[in-house]
Amino acid sequence: MRIKAAVLWERRTPLRVEDVEIADPAPGEARVKILASGVCHSDLHHIRRETAFVPPLVLGHEGAGVVESVGEGVTRVQPGDRVIIAFGQKCGTCYFCLRGEHHLCAAPGPSNVRLRHGDQVLTPLLAVGSFAEYANVDARNLVKIPDEMPIDRAALIACGVTTGLGAVIKTARVEPGSNVAVIGVGGVGLNVVQGAALAGATRVIAIDLVDRKLEMAREFGATHTINPNREDPIEAVRSLTGGWGVDYAFEVIGHPATIRQAYDMTRKGGKAVVVGLADGADEVSIPAQDLMRSGKSLVGCFYGSVSPYQDIPRYVDLYLNRRIKLDELISRRFALDEINEAIRALDAGEVARGVIVFE
Amino acid sequence: MRIKAAVLWERRTPLRVEDVEIADPAPGEARVKILASGVCHSDLHHIRRETAFVPPLVLGHEGAGVVESVGEGVTRVQPGDRVIIAFGQKCGTCYFCLRGEHHLCAAPGPSNVRLRHGDQVLTPLLAVGSFAEYANVDARNLVKIPDEMPIDRAALIACGVTTGLGAVIKTARVEPGSNVAVIGVGGVGLNVVQGAALAGATRVIAIDLVDRKLEMAREFGATHTINPNREDPIEAVRSLTGGWGVDYAFEVIGHPATIRQAYDMTRKGGKAVVVGLADGADEVSIPAQDLMRSGKSLVGCFYGSVSPYQDIPRYVDLYLNRRIKLDELISRRFALDEINEAIRALDAGEVARGVIVFE
Repeated sequence: MRIKAAVLWERRTPLRVEDVEIADPAPGEARVKILASGVCHSDLHHIRRETAFVPPLVLGHEGAGVVESVGEGVTRVQPGDRVIIAFGQKCGTCYFCLRGEHHLCAAPGPSNVRLRHGDQVLTPLLAVGSFAEYANVDARNLVKIPDEMPIDRAALIACGVTTGLGAVIKTARVEPGSNVAVIGVGGVGLNVVQGAALAGATRVIAIDLVDRKLEMAREFGATHTINPNREDPIEAVRSLTGGWGVDYAFEVIGHPATIRQAYDMTRKGGKAVVVGLADGADEVSIPAQDLMRSGKSLVGCFYGSVSPYQDIPRYVDLYLNRRIKLDELISRRFALDEINEAIRALDAGEVARGVIVFE
Repeated sequence: MRIKAAVLWERRTPLRVEDVEIADPAPGEARVKILASGVCHSDLHHIRRETAFVPPLVLGHEGAGVVESVGEGVTRVQPGDRVIIAFGQKCGTCYFCLRGEHHLCAAPGPSNVRLRHGDQVLTPLLAVGSFAEYANVDARNLVKIPDEMPIDRAALIACGVTTGLGAVIKTARVEPGSNVAVIGVGGVGLNVVQGAALAGATRVIAIDLVDRKLEMAREFGATHTINPNREDPIEAVRSLTGGWGVDYAFEVIGHPATIRQAYDMTRKGGKAVVVGLADGADEVSIPAQDLMRSGKSLVGCFYGSVSPYQDIPRYVDLYLNRRIKLDELISRRFALDEINEAIRALDAGEVARGVIVFE
């Protein structure tokens, strides 16, 4: 089938919207008509830096839509189902999936060709590729959503919301009465903020260099804000917490220096949780004796430790019951043709989350 | 009162057994007649390296004995009680103690003078100083033990046993069916090994450069041993665990390189627990992107996350019911006069734990 897709032909060049050929869904796959796709900082990552995904690529991994057709053996969804697409592999049977750690699934990525442009095979990012009118995905990655769930807000749950809320609820297990700091309050960080507020944290301290983002963090439940351009964030966090530091510090940037800050602003016995995607070569330096004496933990958090079938319906339900905000996350809507403008606006910090909406 | 104590006058010199003056117990203190004191690698640490404890020092922090007298207001113990002495502060009322994290107690060390040699004030290590015939300690650090508990084995519970078992049971919470690796199987590491076996680990992999220690680890419950002189420990651990790595890796040496090994041999989603005491200036380098993608945790463990009144009686009970080994840990017994020989033997790896026994 011929569809439009935004292709990254070469790193550090603009995406080009092309007519590409999408295969019929293979056994176990479903073909999803993408209705909305968020634009995430990790899409930018693949544009700019060397990663395991080699161009030509169809980016986009925060998608939602409606099942158009299914391949052989697919019973979990059927055409017409409205779905959120979890990214990556979720095989259900590997070492990790069997212990409920679906976010760590060890299954290899799809080996069949899903997208072509002429003779060129295009790789869909993270086995999704939602900057396209349709995507073939593993049916095990699809979570059905109720009719009343707006599709553009549903798309955000595919990555940013799940990552941010999951970091709080699943990875760190923040409990009521905790003190929490969040370094970096973009699209994912705002979800850490609202997750912490939801989990009953007493203090939710948002830290960012951009005042507009800090204001938004207040709307999402931050009780305090710190702009490191104006005050030392570690000192400021300590002074807000009786000198001790926070129970949980979330780093949502992906930089060794801010990861170390998260560690330093965590109280003895607390957890510093790394949510941000760093460069492959980055190493974070942790003081070995202090780590032992302080009983702190440095915790990696991938995709909010998501088990899609357990968690995504719960997050949808939170939204439908007005316990979390999603409308406010969508700063602007773009057409697929405007993909490069959406990327630019995200990169410039003009939007917390841009969403590509299809027709 | 005049007593004998082994004094470290200057770092990197032998201890000297001196006649020193011990004060009467201050309010809240008890004076304990030390009957046995283990010799621990962290005593060596204070002999050799620059630490917060400045000579002249009375070392020793793994002591047990009998209460000789008590200061004003002490009701928790009385003369004649047989006790294990927990080291450090355990005030019971600070930010950390109130949340049950007594090992992180933020109370300052004692400010009163407990020991003198002539005009010289001697500092007892970690507010204990058990290389002496008597020690004044905070009565809140004393845990009573039953008559049937042998006093020399009780002493080991004051530090090494509690640290090793606690790392498994309290810090990491190893569950039955886990795979566990232990890097460094000296006095503390052997307790990590037996703790993991006790907790129902399927594989307990002991790693050490000294074959004799590895043999001992087998007696303590190790199912596999690795000598890194003969094989790469990370590869060996992976091949023993289906390629994944262990659920829990414990570093019981205190060196950045072995901490990194512990991280590297941990499976995705697993925990690397740092039990060893590193130098103050040591920094461990952790790959930032891998940390996030793998969902691993790097966890500091101080003093086995002990809450003395909850944990120490439980460990005593485990021994009395033959669920853990302590007899085998005591390789040799020494008199106080032989303290330098005990330190030498420990340092040379001739003994897992030497114990100073007082007449």
